[in-house]
Amino acid sequence: MTDTSHRHVPSPGRTGLWLFGARGSVATTAIAGLAALRAGVADATGCVTELPGLREAPLPAWGDIVVGGHDISDAPLHKSAEQLAEAGVLPTRVLGAVAPQLSDVESELRTGYDPMSCGGSQAAAVRQLSSDIVSFRRRNRLRRVVAINVASTEAPAPDSPEQHDLAALEERLDDERPRLPAGVVNTCAALSAGCPYVEFTPSPGIGWASLRQLAERLGLPFAGCDGKTGETLLRSVLAPMFAERGLSVLSWSGTNLLGGGDGATLADPVTAAGKLESKSRGLAELLGPGVSAPLHIDHVADLGQTKIAWDNVHARGFLGAPVTLQLTWTGYDSALAAPLVLDLTRLVAMAHHAGQRGALGALGCFFKDPLGDSGHRFDHQVRRLREWVRDTAADLEGRES
Amino acid sequence: MTDTSHRHVPSPGRTGLWLFGARGSVATTAIAGLAALRAGVADATGCVTELPGLREAPLPAWGDIVVGGHDISDAPLHKSAEQLAEAGVLPTRVLGAVAPQLSDVESELRTGYDPMSCGGSQAAAVRQLSSDIVSFRRRNRLRRVVAINVASTEAPAPDSPEQHDLAALEERLDDERPRLPAGVVNTCAALSAGCPYVEFTPSPGIGWASLRQLAERLGLPFAGCDGKTGETLLRSVLAPMFAERGLSVLSWSGTNLLGGGDGATLADPVTAAGKLESKSRGLAELLGPGVSAPLHIDHVADLGQTKIAWDNVHARGFLGAPVTLQLTWTGYDSALAAPLVLDLTRLVAMAHHAGQRGALGALGCFFKDPLGDSGHRFDHQVRRLREWVRDTAADLEGRES
Amino acid sequence: MTDTSHRHVPSPGRTGLWLFGARGSVATTAIAGLAALRAGVADATGCVTELPGLREAPLPAWGDIVVGGHDISDAPLHKSAEQLAEAGVLPTRVLGAVAPQLSDVESELRTGYDPMSCGGSQAAAVRQLSSDIVSFRRRNRLRRVVAINVASTEAPAPDSPEQHDLAALEERLDDERPRLPAGVVNTCAALSAGCPYVEFTPSPGIGWASLRQLAERLGLPFAGCDGKTGETLLRSVLAPMFAERGLSVLSWSGTNLLGGGDGATLADPVTAAGKLESKSRGLAELLGPGVSAPLHIDHVADLGQTKIAWDNVHARGFLGAPVTLQLTWTGYDSALAAPLVLDLTRLVAMAHHAGQRGALGALGCFFKDPLGDSGHRFDHQVRRLREWVRDTAADLEGRES
Amino acid sequence: MTDTSHRHVPSPGRTGLWLFGARGSVATTAIAGLAALRAGVADATGCVTELPGLREAPLPAWGDIVVGGHDISDAPLHKSAEQLAEAGVLPTRVLGAVAPQLSDVESELRTGYDPMSCGGSQAAAVRQLSSDIVSFRRRNRLRRVVAINVASTEAPAPDSPEQHDLAALEERLDDERPRLPAGVVNTCAALSAGCPYVEFTPSPGIGWASLRQLAERLGLPFAGCDGKTGETLLRSVLAPMFAERGLSVLSWSGTNLLGGGDGATLADPVTAAGKLESKSRGLAELLGPGVSAPLHIDHVADLGQTKIAWDNVHARGFLGAPVTLQLTWTGYDSALAAPLVLDLTRLVAMAHHAGQRGALGALGCFFKDPLGDSGHRFDHQVRRLREWVRDTAADLEGRES
Repeated sequence: MTDTSHRHVPSPGRTGLWLFGARGSVATTAIAGLAALRAGVADATGCVTELPGLREAPLPAWGDIVVGGHDISDAPLHKSAEQLAEAGVLPTRVLGAVAPQLSDVESELRTGYDPMSCGGSQAAAVRQLSSDIVSFRRRNRLRRVVAINVASTEAPAPDSPEQHDLAALEERLDDERPRLPAGVVNTCAALSAGCPYVEFTPSPGIGWASLRQLAERLGLPFAGCDGKTGETLLRSVLAPMFAERGLSVLSWSGTNLLGGGDGATLADPVTAAGKLESKSRGLAELLGPGVSAPLHIDHVADLGQTKIAWDNVHARGFLGAPVTLQLTWTGYDSALAAPLVLDLTRLVAMAHHAGQRGALGALGCFFKDPLGDSGHRFDHQVRRLREWVRDTAADLEGRES
Repeated sequence: MTDTSHRHVPSPGRTGLWLFGARGSVATTAIAGLAALRAGVADATGCVTELPGLREAPLPAWGDIVVGGHDISDAPLHKSAEQLAEAGVLPTRVLGAVAPQLSDVESELRTGYDPMSCGGSQAAAVRQLSSDIVSFRRRNRLRRVVAINVASTEAPAPDSPEQHDLAALEERLDDERPRLPAGVVNTCAALSAGCPYVEFTPSPGIGWASLRQLAERLGLPFAGCDGKTGETLLRSVLAPMFAERGLSVLSWSGTNLLGGGDGATLADPVTAAGKLESKSRGLAELLGPGVSAPLHIDHVADLGQTKIAWDNVHARGFLGAPVTLQLTWTGYDSALAAPLVLDLTRLVAMAHHAGQRGALGALGCFFKDPLGDSGHRFDHQVRRLREWVRDTAADLEGRES
Repeated sequence: MTDTSHRHVPSPGRTGLWLFGARGSVATTAIAGLAALRAGVADATGCVTELPGLREAPLPAWGDIVVGGHDISDAPLHKSAEQLAEAGVLPTRVLGAVAPQLSDVESELRTGYDPMSCGGSQAAAVRQLSSDIVSFRRRNRLRRVVAINVASTEAPAPDSPEQHDLAALEERLDDERPRLPAGVVNTCAALSAGCPYVEFTPSPGIGWASLRQLAERLGLPFAGCDGKTGETLLRSVLAPMFAERGLSVLSWSGTNLLGGGDGATLADPVTAAGKLESKSRGLAELLGPGVSAPLHIDHVADLGQTKIAWDNVHARGFLGAPVTLQLTWTGYDSALAAPLVLDLTRLVAMAHHAGQRGALGALGCFFKDPLGDSGHRFDHQVRRLREWVRDTAADLEGRES
Repeated sequence: MTDTSHRHVPSPGRTGLWLFGARGSVATTAIAGLAALRAGVADATGCVTELPGLREAPLPAWGDIVVGGHDISDAPLHKSAEQLAEAGVLPTRVLGAVAPQLSDVESELRTGYDPMSCGGSQAAAVRQLSSDIVSFRRRNRLRRVVAINVASTEAPAPDSPEQHDLAALEERLDDERPRLPAGVVNTCAALSAGCPYVEFTPSPGIGWASLRQLAERLGLPFAGCDGKTGETLLRSVLAPMFAERGLSVLSWSGTNLLGGGDGATLADPVTAAGKLESKSRGLAELLGPGVSAPLHIDHVADLGQTKIAWDNVHARGFLGAPVTLQLTWTGYDSALAAPLVLDLTRLVAMAHHAGQRGALGALGCFFKDPLGDSGHRFDHQVRRLREWVRDTAADLEGRES
């Protein structure tokens, strides 16, 4: 794939990005960052779709992406942005440059679905949310809208028929009580509005087989779950390293310290359960069964936007010799997640443009707990992504000519 | 490649392993470990050639490998083994079980070449060493002998014609002074004896273009340089991770603490220069130019066989957000290196069996500073190795049928 | 204090050490280590009472200490010792040298109290245990017996009158049900037998005010609780450092990875509660209220006897500048605890010899959660210990002359 | 000591702080921080003299301190401050609030002595510098001026008579060549101007016996050398911890990563020698001889104002069991140093006020390589400081009444 080869392939065109949790830290960083890229006050460091071999594909340009979204909070976007600037996530000069664009996005935000406070049938809620998205698409003359969930993590729901069967789910939507998780209602709404869907959290949503059935029925592509931004990313390159050297990993212990909103949410062990599950699944696949893998998430408010992960890996090598690896990863969670949200918008838009449907396994490298058949090895996932981008680009080019 | 497909391909047969530095820690661990594998008192943890997809290839069986070697020391092998047992590298039960086999190997060890003490022409030294190896091969009725350098690291030599040109080198061999590095004399001897050659250290040897010319002229395969056992292994999976996420690494600082013999050798900055060079080259290739990468090797005698590496990686992500990764790797250097020495013996024997010659780029995953075209990315190297093993096996199978 | 000054002060004489949990790892290490010190096959590294300024005090000589104890397990002591040797805690040469002495101690071990299986009144159990200790003292012609609890950690009991009031406790002892924690029954027995008592775990025992009342009534000295061997030791020097520099610690997060028996016990959150409490109390005292201090104990069986603690300290300095300290502490828990058990035997024997009674606050440096008035600052505790040893020695000397 | 007891003791009054290296990072942070304290926009976190037990002493109030200084650079102070704000050391709101005060200090800065460029006799240079300081004192009606060296580290000078003997030094001053280190000329000038002197770097200066003779002759107090702000501070609490537990430290390896100006200066091994020496001396005193202690300072420009220190401590405990402590300390060097500069100004002013002369050993806790008899143990140093403050306060109070 060279620059030339795609020169004449039209990009997916004006593309909407609809964010569930649009006023949160990840969303605000993505919105401000996109504005900064368009304003030319920031470069695309951290964006996978700007790497050689990917950036040549027929993706929507930064300037083609229009953002809207739902949130249950009504804190103004510029306030969120100021807090992120104080916390060091957004540089002050960026904050100044993007104020007008934040204000544009602000006008596209709508009140989100809150299972605690919403009355009426859930089906009505789905219709309302869906209609918000359809209006957004029409108002902005968008070819398509990619919906991405970046709202606070919700607890996994106990097993029930509506997780597995679309008919059961649709029946439940007509009830008033008990309420479904917000993520489920949002996913229903996005799909009903004809949007490809990305689950960037471990919350109930497209992870439910019933919702995947809905997406398939509507011919929509989807991807998820739970953005792979730090500790799990490291594990997905380090675990294969141990395996390919024949070293036997006995335990992989982890501690996560998080400030910020997500830290508070995940301090609740019930909510954290989903996160811990999606973090653990990969390790078992990469290293086989029997690896002890205790894992904690602690809310440490004074860390603010900073996230610190510590891992201790204990392995045995030749003649039983011990090998220990300890690692400490420190970063701003939102700054690690936001560019991936933008990347996913572009890539999913391209997939939709190319008429792809169902689980986009080729996007597995973005997720802790990937849907589709990507597996957890980062090297395999990256190769898969690059091949898929090349093939999809060729496919679009073929149609064009 | 399935089990079946190679069932009838004969392995390379009885294979010699000739170790330069045969009484050192890495060699002793390899020798005792091989004996333990044959005696069934240890499993093959840490051996790459025992992984699924590799172990099915027509490699010499553990029982087919016979060990001899040169060393300038005359400390008995069983003493080295006892010290390694005390240091925790060799389990006591292994030590007991392998005593007879150590004694067999002892009888195959010869006095090595020491540029400080040897008199006479260097060409004569080459002839003597070469003749030792040829006798070993005949005495043990070996189909081939793979020579591997695991002697103490030698300092890089200042640039000179004999590094680049075989004729110049051969001329130098006829001089008595100044002496060539031991690694160069040893490599000459091994190649002259018709042995495929593996450079497991960063010392002068097959890294010299002139010696590679000799190998090519003699139709021999070779591989190197400098076994990738710890910090550099980690870097070769982590640096691509940063790159594939579009994160910009600004600095990658490293400290190595080593006890044991190699630590003492590397405490000399002149000698360490080669090691530091071979460690650094990869980082530049993986991350591009401009990454600050200070690196130290300290000899800390009380650490014994333990090696501790600490790395601090400082990167920038989206909107300039800092990301820091710190890692501490602790292991017994000899226990990490020894199984790779055995793997290389098997793989190079297979290559020789298949008539391959020149740089075995497919073995790049074993080296800090790989010869051939493997690049430094571990994932690419591993894929390359697996493809090469499959193709070579198929080639051998094809001939067979 | 000089060597001379105490030359003529007789030591406390033949002293018994009665261990609750006498077959566990800490006990076995203490027993084997004491034997090794007597046999001259180990030096006293790790023993506080061998430091200059302390070793000159009138303490029982290593040769004067005779060990017995209770345990609910009946695994032979030499088996425990062999396992510790395999795990690397006991050097093989020590194991060989101490076999006869282990066998002597074996003959002084008795079946411990198990609230799960014992029938009859608890008062009867106290009488039985107490009688075991008295027999031990008589049989070995000991001047005194120091009882130390090194049994597995028990969960903290819900608040109840018998914790605060001796009469209430004595009443409870006459009941058959519900059973008191083993630590409480053991403490009762030891005190009733006239033994000074040391609580080396966070289990219910001398931490109960009612039992301290019993000790006071019987005129016995006691010390505790919970040996300070690793992470908490570090905290008790590092927290004052931050405080004395005027740095404001915001959070101190900790993770403990433990293999071995104690790890399994502490994997139960209910049992761990006591440990976590005793670890946390100090931090609040040293740094004031408001420091966020999440703390975990994970059982990681493959670590064997190794314990790894990771702490992340987040502080703010001048003009709000962040300061971060991360530390990783790795050691064999039993090897860190055992010498302190021997030190406490000697020091408590001296206190008893000098007629001291009640809480020995001067021994605060040995404990995570010190009884008496020592506070948690290690520097103050050490100074206090040294002054107390000097004063007690002077007191004993005064009587002598 | 209570608040009341010192109520009537007048403080040392209007006090000058003369900074050598007044435009550097430490100086700028101290100047801006002092301004922020006076303006009430920052609290005194990180200031030792604001701790209970110290703040009640008759020290100059923040409002009583007037700053001037020498620097060989003429970069405007507000530029340095802006760079520190960008680097995160100075909060933006502080920067805004202190602009007028920076401008006041700017008018009190004079061109410093540069041995590379200054012509004429060195004695003349001393007179010029001294006269600058005297003018400053008069112009601002100061009772006294404390001179503190915070200029870039200079390399240790080879041994020579003028280091040990004042007469030899004075003779050298009359020569034009070879030039003395700037620190020596500055110290001469400050003492000649009647200023107490503080050496906050490891550069040649008051560390020379000849200059201490000059101070003694002039009846001036002095303190130094080399501010203890990070790794060495940690070592001075941790090494005694190991010692007081009887643990035998075998090696203490360290790596320092520094960006910023001091990092560049210390990247030169000749210059770094002084720093490394002052860092190492303490360890030997605290742990005895024979501890292996390799130490590196690397300049890693992208770290900016951040300093990262990694230490690996390897110790042996009971029965030879290994104990490992690894620690990572991350902070802004200037923010750690600046409050100590302000503390030293106040404390040395009090000492001068009380008529003390010679080495102020009681200030040892502030220095890596303390002059006087404080030793290196942080706990002893802190106790000593507190006692000295109490005694000096009582002395001043006594005179008053």
